[in-house]
Amino acid sequence: MTLPLARRASRLTGSVIDSSTELLARQTHDVVRFAMGAPSEDLLPMADLDEAFARSGPSRYDYGESAGEPRLRDEVVKLSLEMGVETANNRIVITNGAMQGLDLAFKLLVDPGDLVIVESPTYTNGYQTAKSYEAHVISAPVDEYGLIVEALPEIVEREGRTPKAIYTIPNFQNPTGVTLPEKRKLLLLELAEKWGAVIIEDDPYRMLRFAGTPVPSFGEISPGNPLIFSVQTFSKVIAPGLRVGWIDVDPELQRLAVNAKQAIDTCTNVPNQLAIADFLAGNKLHPHIKRLLPLYRERKVAMIEAVTDTFGESVEYTQPEGGFFLWASFQNDYSSINTEELLPAAIAQGVAYIPGAAFTIDGSLRNALRLCFATSSPERIREGINRLAVSVRQHAAA
Amino acid sequence: MTLPLARRASRLTGSVIDSSTELLARQTHDVVRFAMGAPSEDLLPMADLDEAFARSGPSRYDYGESAGEPRLRDEVVKLSLEMGVETANNRIVITNGAMQGLDLAFKLLVDPGDLVIVESPTYTNGYQTAKSYEAHVISAPVDEYGLIVEALPEIVEREGRTPKAIYTIPNFQNPTGVTLPEKRKLLLLELAEKWGAVIIEDDPYRMLRFAGTPVPSFGEISPGNPLIFSVQTFSKVIAPGLRVGWIDVDPELQRLAVNAKQAIDTCTNVPNQLAIADFLAGNKLHPHIKRLLPLYRERKVAMIEAVTDTFGESVEYTQPEGGFFLWASFQNDYSSINTEELLPAAIAQGVAYIPGAAFTIDGSLRNALRLCFATSSPERIREGINRLAVSVRQHAAA
Repeated sequence: MTLPLARRASRLTGSVIDSSTELLARQTHDVVRFAMGAPSEDLLPMADLDEAFARSGPSRYDYGESAGEPRLRDEVVKLSLEMGVETANNRIVITNGAMQGLDLAFKLLVDPGDLVIVESPTYTNGYQTAKSYEAHVISAPVDEYGLIVEALPEIVEREGRTPKAIYTIPNFQNPTGVTLPEKRKLLLLELAEKWGAVIIEDDPYRMLRFAGTPVPSFGEISPGNPLIFSVQTFSKVIAPGLRVGWIDVDPELQRLAVNAKQAIDTCTNVPNQLAIADFLAGNKLHPHIKRLLPLYRERKVAMIEAVTDTFGESVEYTQPEGGFFLWASFQNDYSSINTEELLPAAIAQGVAYIPGAAFTIDGSLRNALRLCFATSSPERIREGINRLAVSVRQHAAA
Repeated sequence: MTLPLARRASRLTGSVIDSSTELLARQTHDVVRFAMGAPSEDLLPMADLDEAFARSGPSRYDYGESAGEPRLRDEVVKLSLEMGVETANNRIVITNGAMQGLDLAFKLLVDPGDLVIVESPTYTNGYQTAKSYEAHVISAPVDEYGLIVEALPEIVEREGRTPKAIYTIPNFQNPTGVTLPEKRKLLLLELAEKWGAVIIEDDPYRMLRFAGTPVPSFGEISPGNPLIFSVQTFSKVIAPGLRVGWIDVDPELQRLAVNAKQAIDTCTNVPNQLAIADFLAGNKLHPHIKRLLPLYRERKVAMIEAVTDTFGESVEYTQPEGGFFLWASFQNDYSSINTEELLPAAIAQGVAYIPGAAFTIDGSLRNALRLCFATSSPERIREGINRLAVSVRQHAAA
């Protein structure tokens, strides 16, 4: 019996960015978690969240509004204002993490065959979503300052048509950790207006800057611009398992997003929305982030030191000023290492990461890997990089 | 500035099946809730759930597997077996309620223009999802025994092509409360095989039979049949706000659904999955349902009595043997009532329901309405039907 599948079904290739690998590895032995972009357990505000859960009333068990709990939307508006972005309740839809924000973006914007530009490398599941709506996805390169916006006009000219959407992760980009400066944001806004294209701003790490100077977000530079589709989440600053994020979009799009959300999953789960609203209303977020920042900085430094000490000139890496990720590329004598082929040996040694090719639409960047420094203590990070080195030597010998 | 929207964006019309109406109404006054299909607060197993939440460890705050928490999938397999359906871990994906199960079904099965048959009347957000993937949706009538399967060959012949999927709610159908007998299920399975069409079985109410004899589900009649895409949920038997359901599908489809889920929202929220797994493992579900059934039967009886006493021959209604809904149609002197037009008067009187036209793809059945008897006590039900009668008289006078 052949199943009558949709064309898109087979295009949705499984992603290695799934916690299964790490979780399976954890069941068998003590693996250092450099793969998933997840905060470590000791950095979760568990006591405060537990209290917040306990305080939420019985309405947490009932259906909620498709746009999200009004209390949480109010708190999101306040939080955005604190970050310099003026928004309003009728621009917000609460989503199951940022991922669902991306699903809504592509659902509302992309017809089959439409052109979508993503970064190379980029967050795998972001372009997978675009592909799930049969977008024609092409990529533009990223350098140490994020998406090379200056390269876009030539790419668009070569393609012979303008994009429907440009998908960018401006702060501490996933997977590279680099940040898009204001100058490039201004140019991107100019191009988007010229092309009538939407900028999908995927910004989970913005609040986690531990060095350097903050860059204004698209919404701060161009308030109320209908071409900015902003995707945000509490996953990285509070806890990912709660699956609570939001989109901040033009009110016209917000109404359509609510319609879409009704036919996607009715509403985001209510207990976690209420707990987060309570956490925010109690002014718990800023002290929590203040506590996180020096620890993440310390972890990044520990990772870079360990990588330098262990691999020397055989590895190049980025210098993230925030977020969760270091992007490393094997060089010189190690430049032929394929990090996808290396992975089983690394997991056997007890360290998990994501291979670089997973972040490109063409399977390139095979000598690179994404290392999450947020999940492990500095000691564990050193241990993990040592294990990686052992697996590299084993792999090279084999 | 015109937004570059996808074609489907404007086709996703807002649904009145959103709790906003009820919630707004509740904020201003004491409204009797006949609209959303939600259990009442006093029938939620809150103490047990609170305990289950407290028992789940810190891993509830971390990312989970895209397929769902392994513990919950194991419990779902056990629960299915108890209901006569043999399944396995590799057939299950945990979803954000049944609604996301439907989103996955149509995402994996429907290309733009593909034919999908739904029931008339049917669950609005079900066919909205099909439309969001640009299916060509047509409907087949429902009688007191559910979908008139015998009518399908003629409908398909008239359409000139076979359907990709047939969407049915077999038990205590939403919105009519009627149940598809085994004979019709056998015929539907036969037609599905002949046409190579998938039967999307949306079955949230199955465990809530309070009268009559259970009908075997599609999976019990035809175990392991790859053409059965079963969509299930804990929303109606435990609590809707948790947003935890599951799909039970062919292992090939399950793998594709996991891929799709990664690019939809990464994973279902973890705390609620773990709490439900704990609730099931502690054998709390069956005693809870045993407590529910006589109460729901009592509520249904109260509603039918109130409708009969109040409206006499001016209203016809179905005789559900389980679930949440009574389907009522105005007759005789009231047959010209448009229940969509009546709604504001009803809400002003303090009673909420869903107009019949919301459940049809052509806006027909305007003299009908869906009444949820599950949310209110018998006393409140009588009060709600009285308020409905007042609003009908006002509306008729105006």
